[in-house]
Amino acid sequence: MSNTVEFGLDTFGDVTADDDGALLPQAEVIRNVVDEAVLADQLGIDFIGVGEHHRNDFAVSTPETVLAGIATRTNRIKLGSAVTVLSSDDPIRVFQRFSTVDALSNGRAEVILGRGSFTESFPLFGFQLSDYETLFTEKLDLFAALLKGEPVSWQGSIRPPLKDQSVYPPIETGTLKTWIGVGGSPESVVRAARYNLPLMLAIIGGNPQRFRPYVDLYHQALDQLGGAKQPIGVHSPGYVADTDEQAREELWPHYKKMHGQEDARPHRRRTRLAADLTGLLQFGGRSRFALCRLARNGGAQDSGDREGTGGFALPDEIFVRPAAAREDDALHRTLRLEGHTDGARSHRVRSP
Amino acid sequence: MSNTVEFGLDTFGDVTADDDGALLPQAEVIRNVVDEAVLADQLGIDFIGVGEHHRNDFAVSTPETVLAGIATRTNRIKLGSAVTVLSSDDPIRVFQRFSTVDALSNGRAEVILGRGSFTESFPLFGFQLSDYETLFTEKLDLFAALLKGEPVSWQGSIRPPLKDQSVYPPIETGTLKTWIGVGGSPESVVRAARYNLPLMLAIIGGNPQRFRPYVDLYHQALDQLGGAKQPIGVHSPGYVADTDEQAREELWPHYKKMHGQEDARPHRRRTRLAADLTGLLQFGGRSRFALCRLARNGGAQDSGDREGTGGFALPDEIFVRPAAAREDDALHRTLRLEGHTDGARSHRVRSP
Repeated sequence: MSNTVEFGLDTFGDVTADDDGALLPQAEVIRNVVDEAVLADQLGIDFIGVGEHHRNDFAVSTPETVLAGIATRTNRIKLGSAVTVLSSDDPIRVFQRFSTVDALSNGRAEVILGRGSFTESFPLFGFQLSDYETLFTEKLDLFAALLKGEPVSWQGSIRPPLKDQSVYPPIETGTLKTWIGVGGSPESVVRAARYNLPLMLAIIGGNPQRFRPYVDLYHQALDQLGGAKQPIGVHSPGYVADTDEQAREELWPHYKKMHGQEDARPHRRRTRLAADLTGLLQFGGRSRFALCRLARNGGAQDSGDREGTGGFALPDEIFVRPAAAREDDALHRTLRLEGHTDGARSHRVRSP
Repeated sequence: MSNTVEFGLDTFGDVTADDDGALLPQAEVIRNVVDEAVLADQLGIDFIGVGEHHRNDFAVSTPETVLAGIATRTNRIKLGSAVTVLSSDDPIRVFQRFSTVDALSNGRAEVILGRGSFTESFPLFGFQLSDYETLFTEKLDLFAALLKGEPVSWQGSIRPPLKDQSVYPPIETGTLKTWIGVGGSPESVVRAARYNLPLMLAIIGGNPQRFRPYVDLYHQALDQLGGAKQPIGVHSPGYVADTDEQAREELWPHYKKMHGQEDARPHRRRTRLAADLTGLLQFGGRSRFALCRLARNGGAQDSGDREGTGGFALPDEIFVRPAAAREDDALHRTLRLEGHTDGARSHRVRSP
């Protein structure tokens, strides 16, 4: 296990507004996501993750289809879901689509499997929320079987049994990197360890230090189960400007709007912002991102540097993946890729 | 309804062999399909269709994922499935994926829905062949409801009911061209007319004249049901060389191999070849294809020209879409796009 840190961007295809404040069509948002991924590829960002939702405020309902469109226009960036809601999908279809994205991208596909923090996909695809646990447990078990790349025999309660079933196309290299997305359930952490799959922590807000116990639990479980060491990733909203102060000032009006309904008392909101901003690794001036980059290039072995990234000690193997901040288009639009360019502030790139 | 004729290529992602006869990995075949589509786009071919199979001899199990990869590398060519096996898929997922391909391609997506001439997808995805009819009927009904672009309420036996359910992303233009693929069932022809959807005839071999009654039936049904006139397409295997004679000679050894197990008597095979070669509109020298092109540019109004395309009178609105010949890699490899280039015989193009 190396101490490499990778740096990525996640997006849900947040529906953004044009300069007059009118919401863009979802189709245009999807094309913008592709263009942003192309720019990220050119800038050396390690990973782009595309989420799955079934709502009017997020344009991506089928991440692999968008990733396939990105795959043939990029050369180096890794392509993943963030997350694939496995509970309401078919594990064989998910495997086939990611294997195809892997083919299209010459081996750059990664899948992050989760149960989803939204539940709108359940009624949409005819599943019962009462089966929430069974659906994910069994589907993950089948998916893990598919990852072995051999004919699959499998039996469970959610579908008729499979016997010596080959699934096409096979993964070209034999290995599809498969993460388990975890929002804060210890059971999910242990499950990831049991299948010896990498762990992706979804830190939506607040102090990320509270996720440290999950990292320790994961390591303990891997040790006890005798599994190989695996990487850990963090998904978190983010915002980048030239300096911490500028980031704070620019973010505030959008942050206020986003959290306005949750707590109507202004001082409480301001307190919460302060807490979030302290905790969010992905917030702040370029220097913080420079630290991330430094960490990726070996600096992660220097705990002093790591402590400098906002108070969150990076595990040696952590993947740093800030998310596109959601639910506010101005926030979203300002986030993209800034801080990773040298002076360029334009993120609304379009193909010629 | 104009008399425009469009000319397309279909492929199932046939697993081809390298120069030493070794089968290529399916992932490489998928990348080749993308490259071929890019070339077809440059050459002015109107349409590329990608089939869905779940077998070791065809690399494409998820056509939309491949089409998405094609979408972002092409500018003009229309992108479709050939066919999407709707019976064993989820109509909402199919709609979402095609809507996303439509977004990625700026409105070039078309879906061809069928029941599939192979049945391997039924056990793979946990469906019963005894539900063959019900699955397609109900799923097509739901898909047709989704095409209206409004919140859907739907009830049937195959899944829990939907009530005022919006599906994302919406089709940008409001219209997704949706064909019904028909292999020879009059019921399917009438069903296409009932939903007022275009008809795609799958002519695998033999004399295409025997499909003429389906064309007439479709027109009659549209008339009786009061639906708007719709285009008709033909999918058929094809092979192109510089001349008819050359095409015949080059095709024969591969044709013999392909049909060897069906009829062991050599003279019967040769007779069948002759019949197929007479009947197959897409077989022959470049001049026949020139006629197709001529027809597309207005010549279709001249019945003399149409009768000259191998004895099959093109309905005025027919779409001519030769398929990649299947199950024989040499046949497959020679087919691609030849006859549509000016002198270029290389079809195994690769991106730089």
